[in-house]
Amino acid sequence: MVKRVAVVLSGCGVYDGTEVHEASAVLVHLSRAGAKVQMFAPDIPQMHVVNHVAGKPTEEKRNVLQESARIARGDITDLKKLDVANHDALIIPGGFGVAKNLSSWATKGKDCTIQPEVEKTIKTFHKAGKPIGLCCISPVLAAKVLPGCELTVGHDCECEKWPYAQTACAVKEMGCKHVNKNVGEVHVDAKNKLVTTSAFMCNAPIHEIFDGVGVMVTDVLKLA
Amino acid sequence: MVKRVAVVLSGCGVYDGTEVHEASAVLVHLSRAGAKVQMFAPDIPQMHVVNHVAGKPTEEKRNVLQESARIARGDITDLKKLDVANHDALIIPGGFGVAKNLSSWATKGKDCTIQPEVEKTIKTFHKAGKPIGLCCISPVLAAKVLPGCELTVGHDCECEKWPYAQTACAVKEMGCKHVNKNVGEVHVDAKNKLVTTSAFMCNAPIHEIFDGVGVMVTDVLKLA
Repeated sequence: MVKRVAVVLSGCGVYDGTEVHEASAVLVHLSRAGAKVQMFAPDIPQMHVVNHVAGKPTEEKRNVLQESARIARGDITDLKKLDVANHDALIIPGGFGVAKNLSSWATKGKDCTIQPEVEKTIKTFHKAGKPIGLCCISPVLAAKVLPGCELTVGHDCECEKWPYAQTACAVKEMGCKHVNKNVGEVHVDAKNKLVTTSAFMCNAPIHEIFDGVGVMVTDVLKLA
Repeated sequence: MVKRVAVVLSGCGVYDGTEVHEASAVLVHLSRAGAKVQMFAPDIPQMHVVNHVAGKPTEEKRNVLQESARIARGDITDLKKLDVANHDALIIPGGFGVAKNLSSWATKGKDCTIQPEVEKTIKTFHKAGKPIGLCCISPVLAAKVLPGCELTVGHDCECEKWPYAQTACAVKEMGCKHVNKNVGEVHVDAKNKLVTTSAFMCNAPIHEIFDGVGVMVTDVLKLA
């Protein structure tokens, strides 16, 4: 049986959209496993547009679906058309787009809200007992939507290797169980069918990110 | 000895910039091989901006260096600062950005001109006997800058699997030797230290593109 996987994107570019290498790794590993992929993104304005050379916001306006289509090579669907019955699993790669466009995590932290279509998507897959794979910052979506779940965003002690470790502390404050994991590892919350890995939350070479995402994809497909 | 590789980008997104999955594959394979990468792009306006959902140009203006920085996670340098002495090899991933921003191939075909900094970069690496890796549409840059070279852009007979086969015919008309190769293969022009592979010129699953780019990276590093 071919596994059908919905991949939800949040733009194109680490600082205001989906982290392109995490998305690409997800697609390469799903393709190698013979999964059938459909990509989605919400048809909404980005929170803002970041000049990735200067690292600063600009005055431009861009649309999340249109920018996500750069990663999807045009083959992408408005998230509001996603029907969970057509998919066996859900994967959401990371990047600041998750914290800026799919939620308000970037500005509100643990008091954030989740974009309504994203919230509905996560809840529907969860209720249907279908696995969800999240990496980098995207596990915070599960922390908000599935209270008390277990997840990893890497390590909870800030250092050069783990520059975003405060995220782990925030999800603990939200009542989730955070499990420290290295970049090549995942945490599987079997009860919630939730598979998480740190990806670029770790300051690691890109092939280690690629491999960690591969473990996440493999474990999601096992649960599907 | 750590091999130092310059990677030149042309924007972010298959229809007006660098094909993001080819770029990501280049970076993953270089990282796994222990190479030291520095990314570059010209600081010039894009030929145009394509809405990747509609597949049509918009009225927007974007800058090649700034958009390329989305793939480079901000760690990118103006191409005019590239000093060949600091690098052992050059790799240019594909995407329409090569044909629109790094050259005028998209509008002029074999009568195209090459962006001056790109032309200088290719000539300088070639003259220094340093290998050059090109994939997808980017081999046309070599066809123009290194007359008579040998290369592949996949197959020369158009079909569903090879939708862009007329590119092979065009490079032959330019006096180059085109060698038909499958997506997982490369052609090595040993005399010119030029390694080429079809990548997304082939209508193939993304993991086969990833693997073909991997062969190109390996062969470039062998020649470096």
